Amino acid sequence: MDPAVQRLLDERSIIDVCVRYATAIDDRDWARLRSCFLPDAVGVYHADRRLDGAEAIVETIRTAVTPLSRTQHLVGTFVVDVHGDEASSSCYLHAQHVREGVPGGEKYVIAGQYVDRLARTQDGWRIRERRLDRWWTRGNPAVTAR
Amino acid sequence: MDPAVQRLLDERSIIDVCVRYATAIDDRDWARLRSCFLPDAVGVYHADRRLDGAEAIVETIRTAVTPLSRTQHLVGTFVVDVHGDEASSSCYLHAQHVREGVPGGEKYVIAGQYVDRLARTQDGWRIRERRLDRWWTRGNPAVTAR
Amino acid sequence: MDPAVQRLLDERSIIDVCVRYATAIDDRDWARLRSCFLPDAVGVYHADRRLDGAEAIVETIRTAVTPLSRTQHLVGTFVVDVHGDEASSSCYLHAQHVREGVPGGEKYVIAGQYVDRLARTQDGWRIRERRLDRWWTRGNPAVTAR
Repeated sequence: MDPAVQRLLDERSIIDVCVRYATAIDDRDWARLRSCFLPDAVGVYHADRRLDGAEAIVETIRTAVTPLSRTQHLVGTFVVDVHGDEASSSCYLHAQHVREGVPGGEKYVIAGQYVDRLARTQDGWRIRERRLDRWWTRGNPAVTAR
Repeated sequence: MDPAVQRLLDERSIIDVCVRYATAIDDRDWARLRSCFLPDAVGVYHADRRLDGAEAIVETIRTAVTPLSRTQHLVGTFVVDVHGDEASSSCYLHAQHVREGVPGGEKYVIAGQYVDRLARTQDGWRIRERRLDRWWTRGNPAVTAR
Repeated sequence: MDPAVQRLLDERSIIDVCVRYATAIDDRDWARLRSCFLPDAVGVYHADRRLDGAEAIVETIRTAVTPLSRTQHLVGTFVVDVHGDEASSSCYLHAQHVREGVPGGEKYVIAGQYVDRLARTQDGWRIRERRLDRWWTRGNPAVTAR
């Protein structure tokens, strides 16, 4: 295949993994969320805490999202760099979290950047490592508190 | 044409219809908005109300938007599935509505998801059915009240 | 190359310039920001003020951003029209500005549309003219005040 076309296809597939991650959380489709990661993927969602393995990542997200009424992970502004069977990418996140009945406000936005390393597998691109850089928030942090 | 390339072209065209829909509303270009739909398209913007036909959809949106000072329909996080000459897609919406002079606040955000079915025509992809899932709002609902 | 594929590649490259512009500001990478423009590019960020040349554009942005704690230029909803070696494009902007310690609120969103003309060069597409249409703001304007 033409290398330029191959690069378009790779970029499309990598953006698609990032989008599937976002919609899987909002749809609470944990199998789909798991399928975004390599089994031994690493997740760093807080600077002081490293999640080892897709199962740990999915369980942590599932636990955080389950009490909420609704989430919307709007992702965009994608940057993708493919190097053979490895890739790095980043995208911007504007994540609204809604929890009805919380005193002090039902909404909490977490915004920032996902920074990813990915690998090409027989089943397509998978996230090998995902880091969330938190840039700003708005609303009531109690919405996402444990 | 290579099927992988054809799929890229189809996805690009489908995303383009969703983007044209958004910018047509914000530019108040009703002919462009109408061109996003099949003539007999269905629109479901409220759970209890079904709009039949492109004309009814465009007129309903035109009536709602005309009193406003400005709108911004930011769309993204696109998921597209093509099956021959039919397709389903979804995208996230962050729609700001501004109406100057409204007591209680001039802005109202409606955020959620568009869920679409589309058809390939001789003039490109067109929306056959569009449903808006409203997920959260922020600001003053009086901005968009009749 | 197939013209349809060439158009996909051009569109991808043009969107990539707009994304690099956004991430360059947020990363404060002024060399990357400069590389988005032709040397004699024109920037119109305020109706009454025209910036002549990439250096003037970059310096103006650098001066505005340097006092801030953080920015996030979320861009999306891209429209791209390619005509040979010239192109026009637009995209939507939701730009959060954060400045810690400002009385009256640390955040200020500027939202609207970038409207661009671009040219194909030996090094890829470059912005020839960028205009920012400001559509709505939220928060404390003192965040971005001089």
